[in-house]
Amino acid sequence: MADSQGKIRTTVEIHGEQYTIVGDKSHQHIREVSNLVDEKMNEIKGMSPYLDTKRLAVLTAVNIVNEYVMIKKELKELKKKLREEE
Amino acid sequence: MADSQGKIRTTVEIHGEQYTIVGDKSHQHIREVSNLVDEKMNEIKGMSPYLDTKRLAVLTAVNIVNEYVMIKKELKELKKKLREEE
Repeated sequence: MADSQGKIRTTVEIHGEQYTIVGDKSHQHIREVSNLVDEKMNEIKGMSPYLDTKRLAVLTAVNIVNEYVMIKKELKELKKKLREEE
Repeated sequence: MADSQGKIRTTVEIHGEQYTIVGDKSHQHIREVSNLVDEKMNEIKGMSPYLDTKRLAVLTAVNIVNEYVMIKKELKELKKKLREEE
């Protein structure tokens, strides 16, 4: 649902708790993103079942930033290569 | 420090707590990643000061996955474009 400022509010459930995400992204995009976070949290929980939710969420963020940094480097190198070829 | 299985253990501090990350990534990479998580948590905490750390960490993960999904789409489109040009 979009509010008076045109912001979109999407309520999702992640690791058994509800979160309302407000921004300019579609419900579908926010649900896709939230599902990925939930899956990654479950994956890490499976490997370390005794982690409390706070530490689990921080480690999930670390894990995702790790992938983000790697993919960002790949993108940067690809763009650099493209510039060199021009 | 690498252990007997060649795994690298890096201890970092994120949002005032210590985490030991074990894997094949260098200390430098893990510190870079952890600093990004810490910065993003502080940024979100600045916007929503009353969030508890668990919800803050989950929302940080959502925020990062959002950027990850967007950058992954950009990379995919760039690769597709490159294949079409070949």
